[in-house]
Order: sequence, then C-alpha cells, then structure tokens
Amino acid sequence: MIVDNLKPPYYAVLFSTLMTDNLEGYIETARRMETLAKLQPGYLGIESARNEIGITVSYWESLEAITQWKNNVEHTEVRELGREKWYQQYQLRICKVEREYGFKA
Amino acid sequence: MIVDNLKPPYYAVLFSTLMTDNLEGYIETARRMETLAKLQPGYLGIESARNEIGITVSYWESLEAITQWKNNVEHTEVRELGREKWYQQYQLRICKVEREYGFKA
Repeated sequence: MIVDNLKPPYYAVLFSTLMTDNLEGYIETARRMETLAKLQPGYLGIESARNEIGITVSYWESLEAITQWKNNVEHTEVRELGREKWYQQYQLRICKVEREYGFKA
Repeated sequence: MIVDNLKPPYYAVLFSTLMTDNLEGYIETARRMETLAKLQPGYLGIESARNEIGITVSYWESLEAITQWKNNVEHTEVRELGREKWYQQYQLRICKVEREYGFKA
C-alpha cells in the first residue's frame, strides 16, 4: 500500500536490502517487526517492495521517534539476527521528507 | 543494486507507484528514463524494487539537480504518458538524506 496521507516535514527511514539464501524465520520476523513498529509513538506508515533487492520505507514524525524505535529491545535483538543470518548487504538512510506530490487516476 | 558509495548530506527522490493493467511500452520507457537520468548533472545513483507496489529511489547531489531532471523535456512528456496510461497511483517525495549506515556480510 502507498502511504498518501502525510504532510511534510516528517522523516523516512529508507532500508535497502540484499538477502542471503537462508531466509528461515525471516518473513515471520519481518511481520512481527512491522506490528511492533506500528505500536511505536511517532510511527506514520510503511511501504515495502522486493524483487532483486528489497526496499522498505518507514515514516516517522521525528528523529526522536526513529531513535526510540532503534532502541526497542526486541528490534535490537532482531537486527543482530538479521546481520548473522538474513542480510548479505543493507544500507539504511535517515531522511527528512521536505516535499511531496501525489497522483490518483 | 544497492547504492553504498554516498556521503550525506544529499537528496533522495522516493517514487512509490501502483500500476494499471496496461503496461504497454512501460519497461522500455522506464529503462530510457534511467539512462537519461544517469546523464543528468548531479545524478548519484538509483535503487528499485517491485512486487505489489514499486519503489524507485534516485539519489541526487542537490535540489537544483532534481529540479533540472524534473524540467528535462523528454522526462516531462513521459510523466504525462505515465499518468494517462501506466500509473493508477503514485506518491513522489523529495527527501534530504541526513545519516546513513551500511552493512556487508
């Protein structure tokens, strides 16, 4: 789903990933993390797509909200597991959304 | 491919799309636009993924570089074609990348 109900300025965490061949437990864990993220203060929405690489963008009210989510204990444990098992490579970018345009046919 | 050679601050154009059922000419045009974008001054890289929705992120040195690419004549014509034929919905976000972390196994 495309997130189209936000008003800049706000923040985006842009997470680009290349997976290993071992995806055991990944999908369940990714779903659990999405559920947890939605419970965080300052969470605004999420968009995700995957084929050769995966791109997940989560939207947040503030840098403080992103830091709180980063420091969530379960999320921190899962990130370690991700680096051990699931991710061959990733790049994580903290971005300020300055402007936005939408279109619907 | 994941873009992992950039140093913040720089800019990201985050383009989230939902397609129509008519993708005639789309792939060729998307490739042509990627080729054109790479020739633009200030272009830094691109990442793209698609399943239910598509997410394409292009990276740029400055807001001026993004504006120049927006004003490119061929790109402008293609955007109109996109709204007529290919896109059911899209959201375009102009973002400033403030921080970045990378991982490689």
